[in-house]
Amino acid sequence: MALLDSLEWRHAVKAFNPEQKVSDENIEKIIEAVRLAPTSSGLQQFRVIAISNQEIKEKLVPGALNPESMRDCSHVLVFAAWDKYTAERIDDVYDFTTEERDLPKGRFDSYTDQLKNLYLNQAEQLNFAHTSRQSYIGLGFALAQAAELKVDTCPAEGFDNKLVDEVLELEKHGLKSVSLLYVGVGDDEKDWIKPMKKVRIPREEFVIDVK
Amino acid sequence: MALLDSLEWRHAVKAFNPEQKVSDENIEKIIEAVRLAPTSSGLQQFRVIAISNQEIKEKLVPGALNPESMRDCSHVLVFAAWDKYTAERIDDVYDFTTEERDLPKGRFDSYTDQLKNLYLNQAEQLNFAHTSRQSYIGLGFALAQAAELKVDTCPAEGFDNKLVDEVLELEKHGLKSVSLLYVGVGDDEKDWIKPMKKVRIPREEFVIDVK
Repeated sequence: MALLDSLEWRHAVKAFNPEQKVSDENIEKIIEAVRLAPTSSGLQQFRVIAISNQEIKEKLVPGALNPESMRDCSHVLVFAAWDKYTAERIDDVYDFTTEERDLPKGRFDSYTDQLKNLYLNQAEQLNFAHTSRQSYIGLGFALAQAAELKVDTCPAEGFDNKLVDEVLELEKHGLKSVSLLYVGVGDDEKDWIKPMKKVRIPREEFVIDVK
Repeated sequence: MALLDSLEWRHAVKAFNPEQKVSDENIEKIIEAVRLAPTSSGLQQFRVIAISNQEIKEKLVPGALNPESMRDCSHVLVFAAWDKYTAERIDDVYDFTTEERDLPKGRFDSYTDQLKNLYLNQAEQLNFAHTSRQSYIGLGFALAQAAELKVDTCPAEGFDNKLVDEVLELEKHGLKSVSLLYVGVGDDEKDWIKPMKKVRIPREEFVIDVK
């Protein structure tokens, strides 16, 4: 099936069957798609927390706008971005890159100096706004990959970030939660949105053509 | 080819062949993927400006961090998000949705009231931070769709937003530019990144498993 058909097929699943789990193989494919996502300057300034532990999910239920989805889904993928840029984080990425590419360490120094000059002189809040954005490209790849596999998902921003950060101890990783992806097996009978037509604004209104 | 193989195949193409154009058919498929992208509350709070006009591209060259890519690529897709939320914009989306789903107008009033209460009491800057983020899901879908079609792309945040907004007269559409996607046919000889290994941090470092 072509990707477009998969993207047409998917929808934000509103109810999951708690008895059915998504295979590790499929979860790993979704994670791999996210890992391959491009990011600004290739910094991969976000991480994924893959939760299948039911006790931890239950702890997050009170902070979820879709508490039943949190409880009943198979896995929750939490997209969490760097809380800020630091020289060390930037260097770590580029040291790894030069190593992997068999280039001299410091090969990209002039570029990383520019990045440090830009980001380290910015308020942490702006840093996080930028790192957060990148995670949405990964979220897009996760949604596309899950759709290809016909795995049901629902992306969500509506949750108590503070609770999620605390339960997952994200601060010690230098991360803050941004979005969630509920992954599971949809409960078609309870999913009120399933029978409804997928609605998108028409192409003519969505695109401005400059030919 | 599976999506993962396509995502592995793609890279941020650094040089395009100005003599070769991407077919309208492929451009439309990429746009359609973006149009199908989910967004917070289904508001589709961003638009795509699809530029193939060389004169307009030339006007944007001075504001591009990759001026050669701007000049030589086949198409530039500009992702531009709503500058702010307004009651009218929210209502327009939900009026269209109820119409398309053959539901009574106002069926989602309690929900849209919540959205208005949240967004209209927020600084415009925070509104735009939120609308901008959504466009990155669309950017992700565009990258995935282009990769499936083996169409070369390079996403970019590095450009003069003010110039782009002015040249494209985005203000009158209530939009502000967020990111660009250069789409074209790569010039393999000039693309310095093409022969290099794709580098991503290992799965073990990228993911925190909570099993």
